Amino acid sequence: MKEILEKPPTVEGATGPQKGAGYPPIERRSSTFDPKVLQRVLDGDHVEIRNWVKQLITQPEFRYYDGNDMAVQRRQVVSWTKRIADAGIGRIFLPRSLGGEENVPKFMAAFETLTFHDISLVIKLGVQFGLFAGSVQQLGSEYHHQKYLPDAAAAKLMGCFAMTEIGHGSNVQCLETTAVYDRANDCFVLDSPTYSAGKNFIGNAADDGRLATVFAQLEVNGQKHGVHAFVVSIRDEHGSPFPGVTIEDNGLKMGLNGVDNGRIWFDHVKVPRVEMLNRFANVTVDGQYRSDIQSQTARFFTMIGTLVSGRISMAATANSAAKSALTIAIRYAARRRQFGAPRASQETLLLDYSGHQRRLCPLLANVFALDFALKYLIEQKETAHTGSSRPLETLAAGLKAFTTWNTTQTIQTCREACGGEGYMAVNRLSALKADTDICTTFEGDNTVLMQLVAKNLLSDFKEKLKEMRPAQMAGFFVDQRLTAIAKRNPALTLNIVERHLRDADFQLMMLRLRETTTLFSAAQKFRYLTARRKLDPYAAFARMQRELLELAYAHVERVILERFAQAISTVQSPPVKQALKRLCDLFALSRIELHKGWYLEHGSLTGLKSAAITRTVDKLCQEVRQDAVQLVDSFGIPDSCLAAPIAL
Amino acid sequence: MKEILEKPPTVEGATGPQKGAGYPPIERRSSTFDPKVLQRVLDGDHVEIRNWVKQLITQPEFRYYDGNDMAVQRRQVVSWTKRIADAGIGRIFLPRSLGGEENVPKFMAAFETLTFHDISLVIKLGVQFGLFAGSVQQLGSEYHHQKYLPDAAAAKLMGCFAMTEIGHGSNVQCLETTAVYDRANDCFVLDSPTYSAGKNFIGNAADDGRLATVFAQLEVNGQKHGVHAFVVSIRDEHGSPFPGVTIEDNGLKMGLNGVDNGRIWFDHVKVPRVEMLNRFANVTVDGQYRSDIQSQTARFFTMIGTLVSGRISMAATANSAAKSALTIAIRYAARRRQFGAPRASQETLLLDYSGHQRRLCPLLANVFALDFALKYLIEQKETAHTGSSRPLETLAAGLKAFTTWNTTQTIQTCREACGGEGYMAVNRLSALKADTDICTTFEGDNTVLMQLVAKNLLSDFKEKLKEMRPAQMAGFFVDQRLTAIAKRNPALTLNIVERHLRDADFQLMMLRLRETTTLFSAAQKFRYLTARRKLDPYAAFARMQRELLELAYAHVERVILERFAQAISTVQSPPVKQALKRLCDLFALSRIELHKGWYLEHGSLTGLKSAAITRTVDKLCQEVRQDAVQLVDSFGIPDSCLAAPIAL
Repeated sequence: MKEILEKPPTVEGATGPQKGAGYPPIERRSSTFDPKVLQRVLDGDHVEIRNWVKQLITQPEFRYYDGNDMAVQRRQVVSWTKRIADAGIGRIFLPRSLGGEENVPKFMAAFETLTFHDISLVIKLGVQFGLFAGSVQQLGSEYHHQKYLPDAAAAKLMGCFAMTEIGHGSNVQCLETTAVYDRANDCFVLDSPTYSAGKNFIGNAADDGRLATVFAQLEVNGQKHGVHAFVVSIRDEHGSPFPGVTIEDNGLKMGLNGVDNGRIWFDHVKVPRVEMLNRFANVTVDGQYRSDIQSQTARFFTMIGTLVSGRISMAATANSAAKSALTIAIRYAARRRQFGAPRASQETLLLDYSGHQRRLCPLLANVFALDFALKYLIEQKETAHTGSSRPLETLAAGLKAFTTWNTTQTIQTCREACGGEGYMAVNRLSALKADTDICTTFEGDNTVLMQLVAKNLLSDFKEKLKEMRPAQMAGFFVDQRLTAIAKRNPALTLNIVERHLRDADFQLMMLRLRETTTLFSAAQKFRYLTARRKLDPYAAFARMQRELLELAYAHVERVILERFAQAISTVQSPPVKQALKRLCDLFALSRIELHKGWYLEHGSLTGLKSAAITRTVDKLCQEVRQDAVQLVDSFGIPDSCLAAPIAL
Repeated sequence: MKEILEKPPTVEGATGPQKGAGYPPIERRSSTFDPKVLQRVLDGDHVEIRNWVKQLITQPEFRYYDGNDMAVQRRQVVSWTKRIADAGIGRIFLPRSLGGEENVPKFMAAFETLTFHDISLVIKLGVQFGLFAGSVQQLGSEYHHQKYLPDAAAAKLMGCFAMTEIGHGSNVQCLETTAVYDRANDCFVLDSPTYSAGKNFIGNAADDGRLATVFAQLEVNGQKHGVHAFVVSIRDEHGSPFPGVTIEDNGLKMGLNGVDNGRIWFDHVKVPRVEMLNRFANVTVDGQYRSDIQSQTARFFTMIGTLVSGRISMAATANSAAKSALTIAIRYAARRRQFGAPRASQETLLLDYSGHQRRLCPLLANVFALDFALKYLIEQKETAHTGSSRPLETLAAGLKAFTTWNTTQTIQTCREACGGEGYMAVNRLSALKADTDICTTFEGDNTVLMQLVAKNLLSDFKEKLKEMRPAQMAGFFVDQRLTAIAKRNPALTLNIVERHLRDADFQLMMLRLRETTTLFSAAQKFRYLTARRKLDPYAAFARMQRELLELAYAHVERVILERFAQAISTVQSPPVKQALKRLCDLFALSRIELHKGWYLEHGSLTGLKSAAITRTVDKLCQEVRQDAVQLVDSFGIPDSCLAAPIAL
């Protein structure tokens, strides 16, 4: 055959246009900044662990497997898990009392970097370290730490986090599994009273887990105390389930087939009393229930609140995956040519089409914006004095939902932007899509989380109003009216010069305006439904889910923009600062453009100004396009992780 | 183990909540209409073939395979293909001269129904019957029909449609493969001069194809005549590629792994002169090029235009897949309960949450709207006197893009609406998602197709203006201004009563307004860019891709609404008519709501009216929710095809 066919593709199974076939190398000309400098900004304080992880995942044993055999994928993920545990990653999160660093931000940075490699692996590690070991650490006491954490951190003792049930996913308070204290045997009797009480989608359950943190309704001396967690042995060292434990494989999934999800039912399984994770509540030797938190609801939310880390790492993982997808799509668009002017010497780059810029550049801006917002969230998690607090919970829930939805949209758009090549498994967008698709569901269904965000905001608002004295309150409502008038201020609504639209204060003002207005009107509607229509709060909220979602989005977007602007202000290098400011402008204005219907409806945009914003978004997309290749270079994703022939 | 665990799930590997586990059977109470009557409306003229296909695909040999081994999937799809060909499906499309029915609408109905079963199978059949046999039939002459069609229709002779190349997907006019006429040997020499000239993503290429319709640049006596099609033998009867033909497997894909896509390169392969598909152009015995169509461009578009059927069946397939996804998600939501009022006897159905209704009901309305629009498109195809015409091309391109994007969004939303269950392979949303994802790319990339729609509309507009005498033209522009004034008519813009919003005339007026306004402003922008800024048309269009997309959407939406309203007017049964009118209102108002930013920006909606539309959409979602289970029942999808345990 021809010489051109004899050349093996650079990567096994490569399908993309090959070098020398008329495609120029990826443009890295006309750089307005040095991607290495931006990468340092993104790597932040944890550059060392990021480099350590990259060194590890670029070793030959981390080579991707080309097929899709579930058994092979699972075995591979287990061996990678052991390899990473052997390299000592567990030390990062272990408590200091056990010789660990107890450094959650560092652990998150490791996770973000591992995502560049394989998401099944990240989820497996998340189940083992974050959920299983994390629940033992957060909900248990010294006894449990000593007994379980060292082996869990070394991945010698694999464990599950058995919360979700077949019948109850989001509504954890209504779990059916029971744990009845049996005083005679000083143990709890764990039981799944129905089929739907079976624990479901439990990672590590189908194959590898020997232990499980099981959430069940505690009953002591005939009294119900709500959901509590217990460490339960589910398999012996040979892998056989213990008597009374029934395990079923969840089987093939859309993605994440390297993770062994399964269902677990318990038939009157005896669990020693000391295996109750007793940080927040305990059953004493003499069979008495004790807790420092009096309200059952407060206790429940304290326990659940400790799981906020799961939401944070889910968001971080999702954003990393979006970075991989954008790197692939932008590098492809910077090399792939299609159509062109009648007499042009070559066809036009996809990235030079205004439509293509419009598809990819705002998504690139989102990923950067979220990167800084997630860094802020991780900081807040560190400074929150107890395990959780309402502001932290709100922030984590909102960012988890926003980020994971953004990732779903981003990967989908990248797939389409790469055409048929995007559909080929070898180009990895299909794995990214399939593996991250569930991120919008687990660690809290996004729609449920967004409602939580909105409800928390409404509660805060109510408390604020309560604290106000009547005179202040009157003043507050006057303020609201003034805002309403201000937003109709002609000097503002008629100003369409670009400098004004690209002014951070204008942008923030617009996002704040939307947040306060939606908050105020949701509060009014809630009051109307409860006071006038006599609905209970549950029914009132169920009626206004559209408004709650709108409020939650408005809140999260305002927070993201604020953090992005704040982060830019700390950047030293002027060219990097400028590149980030362009992205920040694009983020802010494309969000305003997305919600232009709302702004126009509320009289805070005129038709003329709305059209001017659209033109500015067009222009910003062109500007960001100039930096696009360098921007994705700054993510610092190793080539062996990207792997996609169309991106190399 | 417990009795509840011993009961085998009704479907192998079932994961969903089981009957008797506290979940009531799906509601079919409070029916406002009989789904069987609506099904007759949807089945239309082709109820017989639909039932015939359903009978076939519910046979035991069409049982789904649970795994994801590509080789097994491919073998299964081949055996299904043979089974369907043996049953005689080929007769439907074969020309009457060969004893066939030559009935394309009936064939499309068969395809729509087959989609309920498996999309790999539909694509395999589409490649074999629609693309390969279809190209022979449409582009060839009696010689080719006699020689190839009977065996192709019986699936005894498998063939490929080799148009797309590695380097050229959308830009077919720039294909690199050459076919040079060799007079001495009375043949064409087919050649792939570069790696990127390789045919790519070709169905039937990797394993089964023995023939291929190959598109190549024809050169006769040193003169280039553009792209033409040739029937080329690529494999012998034992499956070995012929000398000079190199075939590579495309390997694993995101979905459609039952279809054997591959790449093909030709190294100076000799193709007898008579194997050129010569309906529109021919090379005579004495080596002269002859065509009745003088312009090379016109000839190209005539040949390509015959492929409009591919786009139509792609749209029909995508809409069928959306029906399957909605059936699964709505049946699940009509049984699954989560959260509830504090003292309620049971939790609330997902389908009773306003947020859930908002997610699913507008998508249900879209699917119905598209069903009628696609029926109209198929009718138009039948009445178009030649193979193609610009209005038909515009309609097919627009509906293909709109429908396939709608399907991607619908299946994604359904997956999320089913939570973790939606992620399990057994519930089939993952296969639906993966298999249909490429629909937005093949048979024409959607973004390219939408630009084609807009450009066609602009050309029509230009011709219309040209035909006008100056006096008429002045009148036309005055009309435009009058429209502009009319849309600010306070009686109209201030009318927010529900009856007005649900009036078909108001809805159509709004969609028409958007179409004409976007058309007019795109024409102005094009004129500005070409006349004032001196850009060539290519460059001008490249600059205004956002505007073109907006125009194309506005056009397609107006057509869909018109067809929906028209179809409703022919329905006899009053309750069915009412149910469809609710869906039609929801379609129209949710599109206006989606574009409220545009309407407000252009002064054709006031803030008050926009808010009223949102409230009416909320209300319509509640109304459609009452019919939801019956509406999806009316799709008539066999249970064995749905297969998803959560839907049964």
